[in-house]
Amino acid sequence: MARVALGIEYDGSAYSGWQLQSHARSVQGELQRALSRIADHDVQLTAAGRTDAGVHALMQVAHFDTRASRPEQAWVRGGSTESAPDVTILWARPVPERFHARFDAISRSYLYRILNRPARPALERSRACWLRRPLDAGTMHAAAQVLVGERDFSAFRAAECQSSTPVRRLISIGVERRGEVVEISVRANAFLHHMVRNIAGTLLAIGTGDRPVAWVADVLAARDRTLAGVTAPPQGLYFAGVEYPPEFGLPSLP
Amino acid sequence: MARVALGIEYDGSAYSGWQLQSHARSVQGELQRALSRIADHDVQLTAAGRTDAGVHALMQVAHFDTRASRPEQAWVRGGSTESAPDVTILWARPVPERFHARFDAISRSYLYRILNRPARPALERSRACWLRRPLDAGTMHAAAQVLVGERDFSAFRAAECQSSTPVRRLISIGVERRGEVVEISVRANAFLHHMVRNIAGTLLAIGTGDRPVAWVADVLAARDRTLAGVTAPPQGLYFAGVEYPPEFGLPSLP
Repeated sequence: MARVALGIEYDGSAYSGWQLQSHARSVQGELQRALSRIADHDVQLTAAGRTDAGVHALMQVAHFDTRASRPEQAWVRGGSTESAPDVTILWARPVPERFHARFDAISRSYLYRILNRPARPALERSRACWLRRPLDAGTMHAAAQVLVGERDFSAFRAAECQSSTPVRRLISIGVERRGEVVEISVRANAFLHHMVRNIAGTLLAIGTGDRPVAWVADVLAARDRTLAGVTAPPQGLYFAGVEYPPEFGLPSLP
Repeated sequence: MARVALGIEYDGSAYSGWQLQSHARSVQGELQRALSRIADHDVQLTAAGRTDAGVHALMQVAHFDTRASRPEQAWVRGGSTESAPDVTILWARPVPERFHARFDAISRSYLYRILNRPARPALERSRACWLRRPLDAGTMHAAAQVLVGERDFSAFRAAECQSSTPVRRLISIGVERRGEVVEISVRANAFLHHMVRNIAGTLLAIGTGDRPVAWVADVLAARDRTLAGVTAPPQGLYFAGVEYPPEFGLPSLP
């Protein structure tokens, strides 16, 4: 058996999320079906991180084991051709059998996009969250910096989160305006369930002026989910990339 | 009767184009239906420029006449709410009855986007054309400059084009790379049918190195459509904006 790692882009709009489900369309299921045709045997994918319904990926990473010997391009082109048009394989690389897409990830990056203008989105309707009230991105950026470091993120954790610990190491978070779009970029060793969307919802309340800058620190310290902002909607969220030890030689985002 | 001008954004993927058709879904038809509900009478829209099936608009401009007296926000919010989610009204402004969205336009701008990378697009599949072979945007930009000025664009005109003259005044054209995306921005007093897509197809052949820089001048001089590049696909094309005399006080793109 040989192990192969894949970089994957998807539009999550039509999926119940990454994870395989028996009665719903999942990105994992779609790709496993496509790769199994290329491999001529059943393929099981393990991803760096799960994404929820409606959440997109600029670069998800997953691995699988195969008895088939195929050139990298056969997985990339064949896997993409066999998949639905809203899922594509960006690259494929042979990796040692000890490589694990989830456990070897040093950090994950997410992007959250907010279309901030009076008019409802048409082109961005499933690619960004929409907020009519003006956001101050500079204030959001300043407020977010208190989250950097090793912290107990209980306040930003979904009730159904199954992690054994609420502690994560948040490496960086930045908020930047590009025209009508405000982008939140966040990187951490790992994330709790809904953590990025709950952070985004909290920063939105600060960006509109409904809450003061210091509110993030208060919410964080209280460790109480009910005190934080609303969970921002899924269509603004993108799984943006994964960092692995350089020994594996895997591509990062361009 | 009062005349109202609208700024309109749409995702053209699901439409047969701007223009009303009896047996197909058009952006004009979708908006006329929505606005007629707000106006309580039948509304007829006249646009600055028609777009083909699959072509998008960042800012189309259209006008209509109404007996209804409504605040601007009623047209914007009501019209958007009554429309399908892939069409939105960006702004509404009262204009004098002499204003005509098509005849008063001083210039129109289009954007053509090419996703230029080895992997098939997932997120951009209906928002950009895809080319696997590497493009040299600098060469494309240089090659395009011969098109600037008052020219006979017969070589870039669709056979079914109904314009009485093939002469247009091309004000500016620029080709720029932003990461994996190459963008062609073009502004002219007006455009012939398929003119931007035929220019894009010609520049693509130069960007890949299949044709020399001087080829654009040869094609232009020959005035023969069969000598130019292929018509680039519709999903990469965006109607980007319209310029009107400042006396009308209409918004331009942000």
